[in-house]
Amino acid sequence: MELIEKANQAALERLLTGDPVLIDVIPAHEAIPALEPGMILHAGPPIEWDRMCGPMKGAIMGIAVLEGWADDLGDAERRARAGDFDFHPNHHFDAVGPMTGMTTVSQPLLVVENKTFGNRAYCAINEGLGKVMRFGGNDAEVLDRLRWLKDSFGPALGRAIRSMGGLPLKPIIARGLSMGDEMHQRNVACSGLTLRALAPALADTADDTAELSRALAFIAGNDQFFLNIAMGLGKAITDPMNGIEGCSIVTAMSRNGTDFGIRVSGTSEQWFTAPVEMPDGLYFPGYSEKDANPDMGDSAIVETIGLGGFAMGASPAVAGFVGAGAASEAGHFTRRMGEITVTENAEWTIPAMDYLGVPTGIDIRLVVETGLAPTINTGIAHREPGIGQVGAGVVRAPMPCFTQALTTFADTLGVS
Amino acid sequence: MELIEKANQAALERLLTGDPVLIDVIPAHEAIPALEPGMILHAGPPIEWDRMCGPMKGAIMGIAVLEGWADDLGDAERRARAGDFDFHPNHHFDAVGPMTGMTTVSQPLLVVENKTFGNRAYCAINEGLGKVMRFGGNDAEVLDRLRWLKDSFGPALGRAIRSMGGLPLKPIIARGLSMGDEMHQRNVACSGLTLRALAPALADTADDTAELSRALAFIAGNDQFFLNIAMGLGKAITDPMNGIEGCSIVTAMSRNGTDFGIRVSGTSEQWFTAPVEMPDGLYFPGYSEKDANPDMGDSAIVETIGLGGFAMGASPAVAGFVGAGAASEAGHFTRRMGEITVTENAEWTIPAMDYLGVPTGIDIRLVVETGLAPTINTGIAHREPGIGQVGAGVVRAPMPCFTQALTTFADTLGVS
Repeated sequence: MELIEKANQAALERLLTGDPVLIDVIPAHEAIPALEPGMILHAGPPIEWDRMCGPMKGAIMGIAVLEGWADDLGDAERRARAGDFDFHPNHHFDAVGPMTGMTTVSQPLLVVENKTFGNRAYCAINEGLGKVMRFGGNDAEVLDRLRWLKDSFGPALGRAIRSMGGLPLKPIIARGLSMGDEMHQRNVACSGLTLRALAPALADTADDTAELSRALAFIAGNDQFFLNIAMGLGKAITDPMNGIEGCSIVTAMSRNGTDFGIRVSGTSEQWFTAPVEMPDGLYFPGYSEKDANPDMGDSAIVETIGLGGFAMGASPAVAGFVGAGAASEAGHFTRRMGEITVTENAEWTIPAMDYLGVPTGIDIRLVVETGLAPTINTGIAHREPGIGQVGAGVVRAPMPCFTQALTTFADTLGVS
Repeated sequence: MELIEKANQAALERLLTGDPVLIDVIPAHEAIPALEPGMILHAGPPIEWDRMCGPMKGAIMGIAVLEGWADDLGDAERRARAGDFDFHPNHHFDAVGPMTGMTTVSQPLLVVENKTFGNRAYCAINEGLGKVMRFGGNDAEVLDRLRWLKDSFGPALGRAIRSMGGLPLKPIIARGLSMGDEMHQRNVACSGLTLRALAPALADTADDTAELSRALAFIAGNDQFFLNIAMGLGKAITDPMNGIEGCSIVTAMSRNGTDFGIRVSGTSEQWFTAPVEMPDGLYFPGYSEKDANPDMGDSAIVETIGLGGFAMGASPAVAGFVGAGAASEAGHFTRRMGEITVTENAEWTIPAMDYLGVPTGIDIRLVVETGLAPTINTGIAHREPGIGQVGAGVVRAPMPCFTQALTTFADTLGVS
């Protein structure tokens, strides 16, 4: 229908003309004034305590202790069960978070402003690898690191970014795609490019070279540092697509570890959910599929903008890491995602595929017609609270999200 | 012949078991005690002033002023013509240098130690892009930058590297190959990985955050920063292959802008030379092949160890930059170089080619038999002194170097 084509073109123009710039790091209560003590934002569509998966519960127990809302993890669990905390999706507050995606008042958040439309999106700072809260970790090591991010690293990063007048992000993604990153399970190039851009400003605004050295080493030691920046970018450039009448483009894909949810422009804020699937992946030594929690996190926002599993062709090395087959065949994933997307992004291209633009603008009609669900590259958390990452893999968005969305979308157009 | 196969295996074992570590930055006169005032080391095989190309003469005039051996560029030219300076190849003093490859007493040199064999190799610090001495630049901007490298940046870099106990280089190359670098015309990944590794130590050993910020920005602003490190690495791991009786493996390829020279293990220090060829490449706006100087620099040491043009398959983006055809066909160059090399390097692999090791160990017999000369990715200098880089391209090592070498090699074995 012509209405839909026009609406989709309008949405894509908003997506592709977005100009996301990392402008600051500020405490969550400043970024999101509606955020109050006792409120916990999480990844994925809405969910209550009873239905939450193990790592999500583990992270909530940890963050409640960190914020001083509970004496210890046991106390936190009792309070959570008693309904003392107020749970909301990050997506309802201009925010995103990887895996469990905890966002609470005192945490430092990356601020990505979309200069074209003036909206802002927020994401916590990536904690690094190993035992971390986004994978459900909640012991003293995890909490101490989060305290350091809040008290030292976050403020230092904010000062540096402000002193530079912000860091434009689209060129970093463009370059990262020529350096083997797909920006979901592989961010080593973009993390390095970001460090390169920030390091002089971090030095210029430092008041203590020992703490500066620690900050530089923290970024340098985390190949996934850029993931959270890419997620803020994704949220910042997809939000202006929301609520265009007759538009069948997906504006968000997200999972809470129990449900997978998508949002579509033409149906605005409504979530279409289905049970999350289990990633098909590779496990770290000592772990197997038995230990794995199903798919989780707001990070599928990067696939929503044509990266991650959609940009697999840029990242032959990631194909092996996520157990997706021969490295030389990584391009097949990208070509397949081209069948469910409306266009290619001319600014984000893949050299090894002769500068093919990443497939962009997931059309729910194409997903249902082709039966091809979006491919997502993901980390895999242990199913129990407090353990952490056990592997990485590839997962499909569940098809029922798209069929439900298409039914409701058709209703809105009176063509059901 | 069995003797040759055994000799080649011995040489390759030396090459592949080398462990190159960047251990320091020190003044050239400390690194190379034989270096005296008035001595100028240059890229390529031996050459006298009269036969030198324009950019080489330009660099010599500049370095003579920098060292205080001449009042100005005109004075330097007169002195050079009068025979006041003593010219020698870098390769005769454990050193290498890109393009014109100037090495003189006061310059700070990167020190790469091959921990397996204890030998050291030296290379000047990369000056950055734009107008620089390695491309024949010699004005005040060029000389001021070299002074800063000598007085501030070099010593700071040396302190940082020493404080870390050195930086192992093989893992950086391995990672860079998975990030689109071929380490000759594309070093953006390795330069970033190096900055990442050095930044915390630079901060720890800094006494002035403004100067630290300048140093970080200098590395961050130079995508080719790693090239000179890769060259020092190449020299450090090829030198232990020299002088193995009956070995037909190339130990060095190098050009002075007039002659191309190679050395072969079994014929030791002897150079086999032929006129350099003109790169086939792409030119910066305003320049064309008319402006180009023929092939130049010691940097072909990186092809000698399986990188650069030999690792083109790792770097589809470089194929376009050097005008070598479709990005998706970059792997063809690597496969073709596999026909003239004896093995693949299991530690340096190309993900997009399903982890094929880079083709390693150029056998002069295979070059002559197949008629395939080594492919080299190279920068292109303006033919006049004082101008700088005008493009980048692909060039072949001249076949007569290999036919001459094979004749002499056969003589040494008494099978001519």
